[in-house]
Amino acid sequence: MNIEQYLAEQKTKVDQALLHCFAEESAIPASLKEAMEYSLKAGGKRVRPILAMASCEAVGGTPQAVMPLACALEMIHTFSLIHDDLPAMDNDNFRRGLPTNHKVFGEGIAVLAGDGLLAQAFHLLCKPTLLDCISPSGLLEIMRDVAWATGPSGMVGGQSLDLKAEGAHLDETALEKLHRYKTGRLISVSVTSGAKVGGATPEQLESLKSYGEKVGLAFQIADDVLNVEGDAAALGKSVGSDAVNKKSTYPSLLGLEASKQKARTLMAQAIAALEIFDARAEPLRKIAEYIVVRKN
Amino acid sequence: MNIEQYLAEQKTKVDQALLHCFAEESAIPASLKEAMEYSLKAGGKRVRPILAMASCEAVGGTPQAVMPLACALEMIHTFSLIHDDLPAMDNDNFRRGLPTNHKVFGEGIAVLAGDGLLAQAFHLLCKPTLLDCISPSGLLEIMRDVAWATGPSGMVGGQSLDLKAEGAHLDETALEKLHRYKTGRLISVSVTSGAKVGGATPEQLESLKSYGEKVGLAFQIADDVLNVEGDAAALGKSVGSDAVNKKSTYPSLLGLEASKQKARTLMAQAIAALEIFDARAEPLRKIAEYIVVRKN
Repeated sequence: MNIEQYLAEQKTKVDQALLHCFAEESAIPASLKEAMEYSLKAGGKRVRPILAMASCEAVGGTPQAVMPLACALEMIHTFSLIHDDLPAMDNDNFRRGLPTNHKVFGEGIAVLAGDGLLAQAFHLLCKPTLLDCISPSGLLEIMRDVAWATGPSGMVGGQSLDLKAEGAHLDETALEKLHRYKTGRLISVSVTSGAKVGGATPEQLESLKSYGEKVGLAFQIADDVLNVEGDAAALGKSVGSDAVNKKSTYPSLLGLEASKQKARTLMAQAIAALEIFDARAEPLRKIAEYIVVRKN
Repeated sequence: MNIEQYLAEQKTKVDQALLHCFAEESAIPASLKEAMEYSLKAGGKRVRPILAMASCEAVGGTPQAVMPLACALEMIHTFSLIHDDLPAMDNDNFRRGLPTNHKVFGEGIAVLAGDGLLAQAFHLLCKPTLLDCISPSGLLEIMRDVAWATGPSGMVGGQSLDLKAEGAHLDETALEKLHRYKTGRLISVSVTSGAKVGGATPEQLESLKSYGEKVGLAFQIADDVLNVEGDAAALGKSVGSDAVNKKSTYPSLLGLEASKQKARTLMAQAIAALEIFDARAEPLRKIAEYIVVRKN
């Protein structure tokens, strides 16, 4: 399979679905809706939705069935980007090649656009169409997992660790903990919840959990490497900002070559975790490879 | 019944339950947990949880059963207070007699404490113990209602209308719309979701929905009146701040006496909506009265 083509096709499907996420929501005030849609439509690789679809496919489910979950995961990711970019956090002016949300709509609306996307994600997760594939109690379990991976024990907690670590020197254990919270848990839950919608067995879930954890960390290390040697135009954000902000990163801690090696090792471990799966897990295998070699 | 004693007893139960909300959450970073708990424990009347419990009781349910829902509603309310107080929003220094969250922990952590409480509320709503009283699909319906009332079509949307209205003169229709979004929908869903956990019939839900809408608006008008003629010590926040911030309020629009009259009329309508209920709805009736005559 051609992974670049696969990713482009899946991204198109997610982009299309995201366009219609608010179609039934006639009560949303126009200016807030505009701010939420601005960041939601601002591009991005749609890694989490694509992982959820690929994981659903790997266990024999229909990737399209997982779409409300996929969109909810992207809304949660987008919410975190809007808040992370705020002046009180990372104070970023550009994201995905465009001015950040607060630069366009002001800080107050940017906070609310993030809040709105988070609440709307949970609204979307209760969408009755998901119940065509999964029982109500199965869906509640997914919501519980997603809420945990999003909240203070997951992504939001990770951002608080990041804020606290500013200017401080982290060792490798502390850095890995930060990334496990900040990106690892949401990526991991994207994989496992997609598989649950697809009807995964406990054994399959165990393997996919391991895959998700390895891929999540590999993704972050690759991000750190790109921040050092990436191309600003391809990334849509400034290169070298981690060094300017004195952030602890894998390259600053291990060096560039050792960081790349660690990402490759994690990639190999992620692929090995998929041993019990047949050809339907090929997209997941190729995604693991792609995450480490990508240029943006 | 003595409503003040009832409210004090129910508040104690909610305060106790909120204390243990994070007990099972060993993964939350300590500094974020501290900030979340600071605002959650900073007092407050616990109106939404108490309404959920009273409503559950009115339809013959056990009020204690509704506790995870009650705590989730208070977490959502607290999240909105933390974000509303931010410099980019209302820029308030005091809340419930204490420095606001961002004054103590800084803006970045305050944003994350709000985010964390919102996500954690949805995590709590998936708590398996709620399934002792309600089916998984019933609980999903409640989550969908709560997410809607919280998000861009509800409370978060209302705050965006409020932000946009700053300094502008609203007419009564626009002001009522703002409050229906900002406080009405979450108060209304507190009443209906509590009743759903208690096993309400569709007819009962219809009546309680009407009760919730009237009480929600009465609550807001009473708040506006207190902001003009309340006692700062009892309120725990500054009096007259609406006038200083040039906010459109019911007193500024209708005058003080007509505002009080409107609140009393809504109270009477709320109580009338409970006609089909027996003595078990007495707490709901007394709460409607109390909301209009309260001093804080």
